[in-house]
Amino acid sequence: MEGKDSPKTAGKPIRCRAAVARKAGEPLVIEEVMVAAPKAHEVRIRIICTSLCHSDVTFWKLKDPPGYFPRILGHEAIGVVESIGEDVDGVTEGDTVIPIFLPDCGECVDCKSTKSNLCSKLLFEVSPWMHGDETSRFTDLKGQALYHFLYVSSFSEYTVVDIAHVVRVDPAIPPNRACLLSCGVSTGVGAAWRTANVEAGSTVAIFGLGAIGLAVAEGARLCGASRIIGVDVNSDKFEIGKKFGVTDFVNPASCKDKSSGEQVIIEMTGGGADYCFECVGLASLVHEAYACCRKGWGKTVVVGVDKPGARLNFSSFEVSNQNLIFPSLLNVTWTRNCSWMNLLHTREVSPMRYLDEPMSLLGKRTL
Amino acid sequence: MEGKDSPKTAGKPIRCRAAVARKAGEPLVIEEVMVAAPKAHEVRIRIICTSLCHSDVTFWKLKDPPGYFPRILGHEAIGVVESIGEDVDGVTEGDTVIPIFLPDCGECVDCKSTKSNLCSKLLFEVSPWMHGDETSRFTDLKGQALYHFLYVSSFSEYTVVDIAHVVRVDPAIPPNRACLLSCGVSTGVGAAWRTANVEAGSTVAIFGLGAIGLAVAEGARLCGASRIIGVDVNSDKFEIGKKFGVTDFVNPASCKDKSSGEQVIIEMTGGGADYCFECVGLASLVHEAYACCRKGWGKTVVVGVDKPGARLNFSSFEVSNQNLIFPSLLNVTWTRNCSWMNLLHTREVSPMRYLDEPMSLLGKRTL
Ligand SMILES: [Zn+2]
Ligand SMILES: [Zn+2]
Ligand SMILES: [Zn+2]
Ligand SMILES: [Zn+2]
Repeated sequence: MEGKDSPKTAGKPIRCRAAVARKAGEPLVIEEVMVAAPKAHEVRIRIICTSLCHSDVTFWKLKDPPGYFPRILGHEAIGVVESIGEDVDGVTEGDTVIPIFLPDCGECVDCKSTKSNLCSKLLFEVSPWMHGDETSRFTDLKGQALYHFLYVSSFSEYTVVDIAHVVRVDPAIPPNRACLLSCGVSTGVGAAWRTANVEAGSTVAIFGLGAIGLAVAEGARLCGASRIIGVDVNSDKFEIGKKFGVTDFVNPASCKDKSSGEQVIIEMTGGGADYCFECVGLASLVHEAYACCRKGWGKTVVVGVDKPGARLNFSSFEVSNQNLIFPSLLNVTWTRNCSWMNLLHTREVSPMRYLDEPMSLLGKRTL
Repeated sequence: MEGKDSPKTAGKPIRCRAAVARKAGEPLVIEEVMVAAPKAHEVRIRIICTSLCHSDVTFWKLKDPPGYFPRILGHEAIGVVESIGEDVDGVTEGDTVIPIFLPDCGECVDCKSTKSNLCSKLLFEVSPWMHGDETSRFTDLKGQALYHFLYVSSFSEYTVVDIAHVVRVDPAIPPNRACLLSCGVSTGVGAAWRTANVEAGSTVAIFGLGAIGLAVAEGARLCGASRIIGVDVNSDKFEIGKKFGVTDFVNPASCKDKSSGEQVIIEMTGGGADYCFECVGLASLVHEAYACCRKGWGKTVVVGVDKPGARLNFSSFEVSNQNLIFPSLLNVTWTRNCSWMNLLHTREVSPMRYLDEPMSLLGKRTL
């Protein structure tokens, strides 16, 4: 059975509207573009719904590479497969799909492993092209190529995506919620569930209650955390956070200073939270999160992404109460394990699981 | 049954020789000192054998706090209990013991946990005193107090140690080997076994084949690692390393440049070692180890301690092959779990397990 689009348009370029980023930091321009037919291993998707992730904003502002212009941004979306290229298995016209910026070839040692989601066959790079041939599927009406973004480019009525970047989903999921599974919700839930592997009964502190932070709370709640402390300079976030499992709230702006904010969290948790999550993308906040983390067994997970050039800078000795503690005592362990998209790629989680009231709040971010 | 020392000396100060660090970086002075009787919860130990750990050298050089002078350094040792203070259980006169710089009160949530070895009752601080009363048990013959070091101060014929810093061991263990369990061997074996929890069949790269690095190799071998790559600028270390399980060797000084050395390790391991250990104490080497670690599931463990003021500095974006990879893709996880002394404290390992030929090589470090 073929989708309704396919008889008319398959194999031909499609003319449609897209929001094009012409220059760094300048308003996106809604214009008509040409979207080429999918090549081998590719599908063309009619986007139903796309949302805005902070990474879109980060790259929209970047004057220099990995900022490229003109470009079609967007990487959180849901759509229906309009047509497929050669050698496409498992996905066909009419399927409801979520495009994902992280590839999953399904064949390499990483994709087969439960310990990694960084495909070693199709490398994830912040490239402006499709995989492999370094070409674009988009042109403007003057014939100029438009750059891709994160292999998705969902700010367009149609886009072309490699099948390694596509997951089929239940079409019954409301699209304005399902699109969030494409990046933010999976990142946050996965950070709590896969990266940190939050233990039941443990304490959690979440720095930044944006979409990612709220999704971390949701993940921590699913894992059975007993106390989930939201930390945000906007006190309105507490009410929203409660719906995702946040049990306590600290507004650092209401504390005397940074260290007294940290002290509040350390006291609330009897020595520091078992798990701390940085969900804003500020290198300085990583230090704050680390300082609030329980010595001995605490884990601080860095979820946010700071701008290019920002540095994480730790003293080789760590100072505490005017005394010095060896970093080796802390035995900083750097794990490269990543949970981004693991949730979707491994298909262990039904997206339906998230479609309760909290998700509808996240849905407000939908464009 | 009481030890042979006890009838004569218990309850009185002991006059004995010690190697005193009078000034930062100047030769230790062998002089006579007075060692007070142990107070409550303390034991006085006749040191049989003490070895030199690099941390002794680090603190010997430090002009400013946590460098303190005059001080009795030394924290890797074995001895016999000469006398005990009040309220001392489980250890008595004549027991062969290893003093340990990390406390284990045996009562707090950390000491009872298998996930932590950072006692939360007796805090580990690089303090120049005994716990609690901030006094010294050492005086020189002019009556001046001499500072303690890491609660051990083993560069003395007698020392006084809190019972939380003492472990009984089998007196049959040759003392010139057993003393190494006091810090170096436990640190290295524990880093592989407890902190990294090296999986059987995995690949390991060890940066620096000093005593710690060799002990990491021993730990990785005990865990069943299939390939253990030693990295050292001294090629003689390969032959020594083989006795501890090192299967391959890379001398970065023989490679064209730093990045070609990294490339060699990445190629040897088909994409990076599953576990990398920094065992020198150079912040820059942490970066190198991190670069040689397998993406997706690799773990880099920082075992070495750089000098105070040294910084670990990571780009918030990580650059690779002129492409950029998000640090969040790597999802850097900071674990404060520490394996120092866990081996001894939890008593899960018989020290005898280490007393094979490799240990006799480590024994050469004994003073
Ligand atoms: Zn995103
Ligand atoms: Zn793959
Ligand atoms: Zn030591
Ligand atoms: Zn304790």
